[in-house]
Amino acid sequence: MTQAATIVTAAALVIGDEILSGRTKDKNIGTIADFCTNIGIDLREVRIVPDVTEEIVAAVNVLRKRYDYVFTTGGIGPTHDDITADAISAALGVGISEDPRAIELLLQFIKPENLNEARRRMARIPHGADLVLNKVSKAPGFWIENVIVMAGVPSVMQAMLEDVGPRLSTGAVTIAETIEAGNLPEGAYAAELAAVAIENPALSIGSYPSVIDGKFYNQIVVRGKDAELVAGAVAAIRIFVTRLQAERV
Amino acid sequence: MTQAATIVTAAALVIGDEILSGRTKDKNIGTIADFCTNIGIDLREVRIVPDVTEEIVAAVNVLRKRYDYVFTTGGIGPTHDDITADAISAALGVGISEDPRAIELLLQFIKPENLNEARRRMARIPHGADLVLNKVSKAPGFWIENVIVMAGVPSVMQAMLEDVGPRLSTGAVTIAETIEAGNLPEGAYAAELAAVAIENPALSIGSYPSVIDGKFYNQIVVRGKDAELVAGAVAAIRIFVTRLQAERV
Repeated sequence: MTQAATIVTAAALVIGDEILSGRTKDKNIGTIADFCTNIGIDLREVRIVPDVTEEIVAAVNVLRKRYDYVFTTGGIGPTHDDITADAISAALGVGISEDPRAIELLLQFIKPENLNEARRRMARIPHGADLVLNKVSKAPGFWIENVIVMAGVPSVMQAMLEDVGPRLSTGAVTIAETIEAGNLPEGAYAAELAAVAIENPALSIGSYPSVIDGKFYNQIVVRGKDAELVAGAVAAIRIFVTRLQAERV
Repeated sequence: MTQAATIVTAAALVIGDEILSGRTKDKNIGTIADFCTNIGIDLREVRIVPDVTEEIVAAVNVLRKRYDYVFTTGGIGPTHDDITADAISAALGVGISEDPRAIELLLQFIKPENLNEARRRMARIPHGADLVLNKVSKAPGFWIENVIVMAGVPSVMQAMLEDVGPRLSTGAVTIAETIEAGNLPEGAYAAELAAVAIENPALSIGSYPSVIDGKFYNQIVVRGKDAELVAGAVAAIRIFVTRLQAERV
């Protein structure tokens, strides 16, 4: 790779009191992170905010100006606490009203006589937005400017990501290679790892401990856009990890 | 409860490229959320930022001014990508150096001849900080002003929360009651639920769908500091949920 890699960035904004209270354990952040990584979008930041209009507006307005895409989850259902669509329209300074395309979708699974005022709220879409479809429920999300608004229910959110995926601009995919350091302590290889990191400013090199059966287990991960650079750093790291492991036996 | 409840607020700041890349699925946010809820601290916001000093500094400086506490996770190990302690010292404008108390702790599990430069980095503590201990590893976190800096490994982070718990100021505990709406669609009860929410501005009332075996399953949660208000709203909601469920049979 001789020319600079194209970088496309994103942020995720998780909206919901239930995540902050601990009632619901978020699963969408990990899904969005994997999705972005796989298609060549760099997820750079995540925020979780409560169901409070001003908080949503403030976060959306910071994130949409800073990153190429903002993915939001939560708050697009029919109940009073679903305020995301209105908050996004306020953040972007555009109008919002019932969208005939969304009403048509809702009528695919709601009988006309059951399409009450609450359910019609799910068809409130900011002006100028495209709908985001999903195969799990018919209620749509939407995409306006660089903000993609999705449901909070993980299976619905995932289906919405699949819907928008082909329409997203993407950049160079980040290549990630993992070196198993195993029970080798981080402190034993930190200096040599740092030297490789300093030699490779274009790479992100991390050391990740986990505790398995009460013992630390370490992995080193090399991430970057340039396959040759990644391979070179991995080879350099493997040399000292192998040597240090042999010394410990 | 006739007098205003004491409110103590917090934010969590998760630091780590590995969360944003999807390599590691965060478990600490849910643990911190439950911990705060249980002891009477309102977790108001969460941010996830990469291993980039300026990003950590900017987030810490916004969050520490806005909330009573900031809990950070990640980035306090011995490797080059562990930059949290230095970033916090930069954010707070205080010095940082090797702390004799931290060295003493490290020597409880590292032989003096193995206490190399990388491992000594784990003893770099901002000036004026208290140490945060944990029973899983000996490497400490720290607490400076209203910022509590913890490890990223979930079992270590949890042990650190247990260490700081008794020393935290806490407010009124939020009471949460769940009403099972089951297969009753949100759109069937949204209007009546909204009416209860409007009557009870001091409560947070949410409706939470999940998909179980391909079908939506709904729960309504009433949260608040005042037990009587919560009980009153729960009773009001139970009446219409029971009626609507009977009408559907």
